[in-house]
Amino acid sequence: MIKAEQMSLNTATVKEQCNLRQAIDLCARFGIGGIAPWRENLKECGLDEANRMIQDRGLRVSGLCRGGMFTLENQLSQNILDNNKKAVDEAVAIHAECLVMVVGGLKPNSKDLIGSRKQMEEGLFKTLEYARTVKMPIAIEPLHPMYAADRACVNTLKYALDICDGMGAGIGIAVDVYHTWWDPELKSQIKRAGKERLLAFHLCDWLMETKHFLLDRGMMGDGVIDISQIRKWMESESFEMLYEVEIFSAENWWKRDPDEVIRICIERLAVC
Amino acid sequence: MIKAEQMSLNTATVKEQCNLRQAIDLCARFGIGGIAPWRENLKECGLDEANRMIQDRGLRVSGLCRGGMFTLENQLSQNILDNNKKAVDEAVAIHAECLVMVVGGLKPNSKDLIGSRKQMEEGLFKTLEYARTVKMPIAIEPLHPMYAADRACVNTLKYALDICDGMGAGIGIAVDVYHTWWDPELKSQIKRAGKERLLAFHLCDWLMETKHFLLDRGMMGDGVIDISQIRKWMESESFEMLYEVEIFSAENWWKRDPDEVIRICIERLAVC
Repeated sequence: MIKAEQMSLNTATVKEQCNLRQAIDLCARFGIGGIAPWRENLKECGLDEANRMIQDRGLRVSGLCRGGMFTLENQLSQNILDNNKKAVDEAVAIHAECLVMVVGGLKPNSKDLIGSRKQMEEGLFKTLEYARTVKMPIAIEPLHPMYAADRACVNTLKYALDICDGMGAGIGIAVDVYHTWWDPELKSQIKRAGKERLLAFHLCDWLMETKHFLLDRGMMGDGVIDISQIRKWMESESFEMLYEVEIFSAENWWKRDPDEVIRICIERLAVC
Repeated sequence: MIKAEQMSLNTATVKEQCNLRQAIDLCARFGIGGIAPWRENLKECGLDEANRMIQDRGLRVSGLCRGGMFTLENQLSQNILDNNKKAVDEAVAIHAECLVMVVGGLKPNSKDLIGSRKQMEEGLFKTLEYARTVKMPIAIEPLHPMYAADRACVNTLKYALDICDGMGAGIGIAVDVYHTWWDPELKSQIKRAGKERLLAFHLCDWLMETKHFLLDRGMMGDGVIDISQIRKWMESESFEMLYEVEIFSAENWWKRDPDEVIRICIERLAVC
């Protein structure tokens, strides 16, 4: 069974209730091993103070959310590349174990999925070249295909790993059960990835009656994903990073007392 | 450009406005070449009368919606198999060019995706064995991965074609742009399928801001799918069935005058 100290709290899980300091306190009080902040969290108090708070509590940083969005403009602008370089630097500054990439969907007012993917790959590669110089692992997070238009045009582990194999060292994947559970190739692609490319593992659940495309993710155990099966596949590849809980839930978990949320997260590690 | 006579109207497109007779009249008045009824439409007036009305207007039947749902119970019951056999017979009775299969999601109260897929494949094969005896082609429709839990656990063309290849003759796929547009293997799997397995082609569009999981599909041209590109891939395989328009749209198209809906459908064939 996963222990609290093997868990990481993605701050999105208590996004409406906690600022970074409060989320860090929450982790410390519940014996949670790590945290995964978003870049906006780092702005709240500044990078140095964020880093100090995290290190003071002895927390690991399972990942920084997020770089990417290489398709926000119709060209791969310097602005996009600089922003990603900055994300890499921030990840280094807080000792993140990877920088998570949500790569971006279609280019603005475009139906050109193939061209969008090409631009995205180019941006990813340029960011990787920099990340290698500062030894920050880049984790491509394939998002569920329902986000292909507006968030990420990488929607399968296979495509993400094809990209990784094309680019070489320093890049891998973040496997989120929500985005990938349906994929008939999930097991085989986790095996293909292997320890070296398995950089992060995100937990939540898919609710049978999902009401909102983005903000209705479930607590582990409340949905239909066989999380423990997927965990076994990850561990068969000697995955040994933290188990990161990331739940976007406007109508349920974001409205609850954060202590209760975390207590239940930890309880539910038993079903993972 | 696709002409009206190459179009088929899936009755779901005017589900709230028209019964079968009215939908058939609509097709006839607008010079639409075919219709794709749902099984509940056939109950309205009985199978013989439905067939007579369709043949009287000289309409082709691009497909009958739908067989499948092999996972509605925890076992593959006689009830499920009989219902599918009946669907095959109904498809034969109305001279449908295929019986479309929405195969079913997870078994009741189950997280066993692999077991659900196994049960589904068994039901599909048994139905196929019967369908072969009456020469009714079976078209597996892979649904978007967001329906994997509750509607269909076949979510990629690759998996659908793996099933087809395992089963042999008499079975193929229905390619719906809504369900498949995001797939990086769309082009290669259409090529793999070839003319023999490409049994149906369904058109609508993916709206950038989709508001409902099931009932917010877009009119061709209103969304982000490069439909004409996908059509070219289909036609490269000598696809020559009808172009079936199927739009589930509770808040928009289902509220409009059906003549207006059809007029716009025909106009929008120009962007397909």
